[in-house]
Amino acid sequence: MKKNNSNQRPLILVTNDDGIHAPGLKTLMEIAKKFGDVMAIAPNEGRSGMSHAITIKYPLRYKKLREEEGFVFYSCSGTPADCVKIAINQILDRKPDLLLSGINHGSNSSISVVYSGTMGAAIEGGLHAVPSIGLSVTDYSPSPDFSAAILYGERIIEKTLIDGLPEGVCLNVNFPRLSAGDVRGIKICRQARGLWVEEFDKRSDPHKRDYYWLTGYFENYEPEAEDTDEWALKNKYVSVVPVKIDFTDLGAMEKLRSSYAKART
Amino acid sequence: MKKNNSNQRPLILVTNDDGIHAPGLKTLMEIAKKFGDVMAIAPNEGRSGMSHAITIKYPLRYKKLREEEGFVFYSCSGTPADCVKIAINQILDRKPDLLLSGINHGSNSSISVVYSGTMGAAIEGGLHAVPSIGLSVTDYSPSPDFSAAILYGERIIEKTLIDGLPEGVCLNVNFPRLSAGDVRGIKICRQARGLWVEEFDKRSDPHKRDYYWLTGYFENYEPEAEDTDEWALKNKYVSVVPVKIDFTDLGAMEKLRSSYAKART
Repeated sequence: MKKNNSNQRPLILVTNDDGIHAPGLKTLMEIAKKFGDVMAIAPNEGRSGMSHAITIKYPLRYKKLREEEGFVFYSCSGTPADCVKIAINQILDRKPDLLLSGINHGSNSSISVVYSGTMGAAIEGGLHAVPSIGLSVTDYSPSPDFSAAILYGERIIEKTLIDGLPEGVCLNVNFPRLSAGDVRGIKICRQARGLWVEEFDKRSDPHKRDYYWLTGYFENYEPEAEDTDEWALKNKYVSVVPVKIDFTDLGAMEKLRSSYAKART
Repeated sequence: MKKNNSNQRPLILVTNDDGIHAPGLKTLMEIAKKFGDVMAIAPNEGRSGMSHAITIKYPLRYKKLREEEGFVFYSCSGTPADCVKIAINQILDRKPDLLLSGINHGSNSSISVVYSGTMGAAIEGGLHAVPSIGLSVTDYSPSPDFSAAILYGERIIEKTLIDGLPEGVCLNVNFPRLSAGDVRGIKICRQARGLWVEEFDKRSDPHKRDYYWLTGYFENYEPEAEDTDEWALKNKYVSVVPVKIDFTDLGAMEKLRSSYAKART
C-alpha cells in the first residue's frame, strides 16, 4: 500500500457503529471533509456493543453508496472493525492519514470502552498505525445536539493531524450532553473505574418461553477522582482518554513472575 | 449476590467461545470439576472473533442442558461476554470464585487478545471481580492434543484459586502445540507486538455478486523479544499474560496533557 505524499490532501477514513443512516456519521463526514479527502464506510445496520468483533464465519460484502469529488461512501455487511480492515486492505490504494469513528450516539467513557464498536474500529485503526479517534456524545437520543462535538472535535482532529499520536495509542473522546457554548474545555483523562450493573429484564414470548433483555446502569467506583473521564464529563469538559492497544499489565507481570518463581522452588 | 462461605467447595464458572459442543469446553469442564462445583454456560453455536461484544438489539435466551451433583451446564443464545453477564446476574445465587474461559481451539496470543471471544469472557469476569483465566491451545484442529493444557492448566488454576489475581487483571494463557511431556514450563510474558495482515479472499456468488472472506497471517513485529508470549510459545513454554482491564495509556496521558496545555497558551 502506498504512503500518502505531502502534496495530497490528507486521506481520512470515517466509520461508526450506528450504521450508514446515523446522524452522528453524517455529522462526522461533514467535519472530516473540512480536513481532507474522505472515505467513509459503515455497517449497513447498527452494530452497537460489537466491541472489536470480526466476522469469520460469514463472508463480507460492501457496496459504494455515493461518490463525489474528494468523498466516497460505502456500506459493509460486517462489524465496525471489519469496516476498517476491508477499507485499508481491500478498497483504499493508500494508507489513511487519520481514522475517525463515530460520532457515536451514547457514551463510551469508562468501562464502556471494552464493549464499544466505535472504539473497536478506532483500536483497529491504531493497530494499522493510523492515528485513530473514537468520538461519542453522551446522549442516546436519535437527534443529539452535536454542536460541542463539532467545535471541540475539530480542534482535536486538527491537532492530531498535525502532531500524530504516540505509537500504539488511539483516542477515546466523549462529549458532555451540552451545547458547545456550555462546555468548559478539553481534559486529558484516564478511564474511570466502574461497572455496568446488569439487570436482566425477563419477559415471556407468545409461546410462553422466557427471554431476557440486557439492561442496567453504570456504577462509577471513583466519582470523586478528578483525573477521570467520568469526572470531566460531569463537570462539563470534553474527555480525551489515550487508549493503549497493548493490554499487558506490566506491574502485574512482575508480581506474577516472582510468585511463580517462588512456587517452583 | 451472596459471597461464598469458606465451608463450600469453590464455585467455578466455565464458558468458551466455540460453543457447547467444543471438545475444549468438555476438557475444561472436566478440569474444573476437580477443583470445585461447576456452572458451565456456553454460546449455543461457535462465536469466535466476538471480542467483548454484547447483545443489545436482540433478547437473550438460555437453557439448562444437564445437571448432576456439583455440576450444571447451560447453553445461551448470546456472546461469550453475555454468557458471563447472565450467569453472574441472573442464574447464579452466589459469586463464582473463579472463571475459566476456553479451552479455545486456536491461539489468542499477542494482538489476537483484542478479537478473542474467549478473552472477552475472561475480561468480563475480571470486571465482576472474579479471578478469571482464558485458556487457548495454539492448534486450530477440531481434536487438538489437550495434554499440555490439562497438566499446566491445572497448575495455573490451582495457584490462582489459592493466590487470587491482582485487582483489575485477568490471565491470557496459551499452550504451545505440543504434548505435555515436550513442554518446558510456564513463562509470565507480555503481549508481543504484532498484527494480523489481512488478505481478503474475493469470490463471486452464483448471482455474480462479489463477496469476501476475511483471512490472513500473523506478523510478529518482535520475534527476538524473549519476554513476549510469542517467543514463549515458539520456545515450547506455556505463555501467561496478565491482561489489564483499564486500557488507559498513562504515559501517553502525560504527554498529551503537556501538548494540549501548550496549545492553549
